[in-house]
Amino acid sequence: MNIDGKPSRTIWPRMDGGVEIIDQTLLPHRLETRILTTLAEAAEAICVMRVRGAPLIGATAAYGMALGVRADASDAGLHAAAATLIATRPTAVNLRWAVERMQQVLRPVPVAERAARAWAEAAALCTEDVALNAAIGQHGLAVLRDFVKPGQPLRVMTHCNAGWLATVDWGTALAPVYAAQAAGIPLFVWASETRPRNQGASLTAWELGHQGIAHAVIADNAAGLLMRRGEVDVVIVGADRVSANGDVANKIGTYLKALAAFDNGIPFYVAVPSPTIDWRCPDGMQIPIEERDAAEVTHIPGALGDAMHYVRLVPAGSTAINPAFDVTPARLVTGIITERGIASPDALSGLFHDRFTDL
Amino acid sequence: MNIDGKPSRTIWPRMDGGVEIIDQTLLPHRLETRILTTLAEAAEAICVMRVRGAPLIGATAAYGMALGVRADASDAGLHAAAATLIATRPTAVNLRWAVERMQQVLRPVPVAERAARAWAEAAALCTEDVALNAAIGQHGLAVLRDFVKPGQPLRVMTHCNAGWLATVDWGTALAPVYAAQAAGIPLFVWASETRPRNQGASLTAWELGHQGIAHAVIADNAAGLLMRRGEVDVVIVGADRVSANGDVANKIGTYLKALAAFDNGIPFYVAVPSPTIDWRCPDGMQIPIEERDAAEVTHIPGALGDAMHYVRLVPAGSTAINPAFDVTPARLVTGIITERGIASPDALSGLFHDRFTDL
Repeated sequence: MNIDGKPSRTIWPRMDGGVEIIDQTLLPHRLETRILTTLAEAAEAICVMRVRGAPLIGATAAYGMALGVRADASDAGLHAAAATLIATRPTAVNLRWAVERMQQVLRPVPVAERAARAWAEAAALCTEDVALNAAIGQHGLAVLRDFVKPGQPLRVMTHCNAGWLATVDWGTALAPVYAAQAAGIPLFVWASETRPRNQGASLTAWELGHQGIAHAVIADNAAGLLMRRGEVDVVIVGADRVSANGDVANKIGTYLKALAAFDNGIPFYVAVPSPTIDWRCPDGMQIPIEERDAAEVTHIPGALGDAMHYVRLVPAGSTAINPAFDVTPARLVTGIITERGIASPDALSGLFHDRFTDL
Repeated sequence: MNIDGKPSRTIWPRMDGGVEIIDQTLLPHRLETRILTTLAEAAEAICVMRVRGAPLIGATAAYGMALGVRADASDAGLHAAAATLIATRPTAVNLRWAVERMQQVLRPVPVAERAARAWAEAAALCTEDVALNAAIGQHGLAVLRDFVKPGQPLRVMTHCNAGWLATVDWGTALAPVYAAQAAGIPLFVWASETRPRNQGASLTAWELGHQGIAHAVIADNAAGLLMRRGEVDVVIVGADRVSANGDVANKIGTYLKALAAFDNGIPFYVAVPSPTIDWRCPDGMQIPIEERDAAEVTHIPGALGDAMHYVRLVPAGSTAINPAFDVTPARLVTGIITERGIASPDALSGLFHDRFTDL
């Protein structure tokens, strides 16, 4: 998608053998890229959320495997690289999926050829991510068309950032929004700020602004009131993992939005590429929920003039608890938008029945 | 309640004729008081939330009337003071209640005696507020006792600040917590930070810390997950206005907590003194919802070393919408704790049947 009118991806290989990413911890205040040259740097970028969003975590992990294999292409090196990456974050299943895919591809390959093969496979995985998200955009567009009312913009609420910054390109939850924009549908997006990391306020607002889509940031707390007032036509979010029964692990606070949507009869959609579906996980209660540092709640970064500063929000002596995800039960989800089409949560496996032989 | 072990109220008259308040916009980073000497200063303190919380807004408005009457005790002066104060904030009905009470008391009094009478009435209103909240504490204690499980602290979740800082003393939602502490019940409080003004992170955490009550701050988004995990025994919040049918207008985000409590079978209580009940308002949809400045969402104050700074959270060019309250339908409320006892929302009028002759 565009930055100041110029197309960009979130991650790309460099001619010098490094992998370049947009450092998302500095957005929206500063646009800086960062070059990853080692497995450790890739793991760090995932850990501290320079890259985030389930699909982009997967893409970065694939390149992390490639960087690891370049340093040590042995079976032991492959195993160590996989273990390092898997340990970075527990909830987004795309991470495990990408690492396992790289291992499956590389294990049969002679050690001397693994580095080149890994690089090519990571690039292929990124290309596929873009295609999956473009397909989600088209299927999602058909959903959005149903909710358009004449004479007013379609009011979409989203949570966190499941836009192009969360993927290699296009996004998951925002792919249908960008497709709708391309189709000439007038749009307005409610971006909930998404405490504690504020991906809505900092990333979703930033990318919508650069795409020229009208939007407003709201406190997460305001979602229920806006729905009760009839100011939301449809909610679309992404996910970090969808279990086989259609439960949805996504950024903390998603469950509250789903409850409010259900209570107000507003459709609640989840947009995911198939690598986000964990067929091995029977239900959402089995999904590990990452607990992150309390400092993400007690302190917040922001712009002060041209500088970025972290300010403290809580009294000295008060602590915080910081679970990063919650699980929305399938019963609250209207539909799951995938690259193969849309299904209700309990019929999700029907879209992917051919995949079950892989498990 | 205590600040560093020393008892304090949130507002008190001074010998020099001023009214002293704790400036709550500076907490938790700085404890400073401020002296109000005019009606305009009282109105400003309410507007910019140096004082906030429905009961404390009422108390400050009463003293604001007294300050106004000291400058102009005529009927026109009385009317102008009332209009100035009523215009400050629309949602908390205690404001209107306090202003109308002052008018009713002062109108029959000779102009020359009004200033002294106003001062005495404002002091009486504050004394009554303390007594109402103490009674709420005792009735609420009986509720809390029902949820105590042997061998573990009672885990109470609250939203915003309905503690002593929201009242003259004791608090509404936290009065039962302080009563439980006095009764020797082990306690743990989840204080949701309450974006955008962060009254939970800045005020509730601060006052609980000074009272020696174990607590943790959470992002508002985390409330649903904690309830699903079984880590919350009971939710208690305050209110800015309760309509006659038991709908509850309270700080934005309350409705989302009520939905999550209902979905998880967790009792959800609202603690209010009778001046917060608006018998003239048939249902919650009639309650005016204050829209506050977008800057409260786009910027946040915090501590940076010894200084306080406002940092910007959103990209330049993105705006925000900032409704300050939402309405929780009575069907989601387990009980309303008042100074007269506890009632289900649909039986609230039964507690106050003698009052209806006043309307």
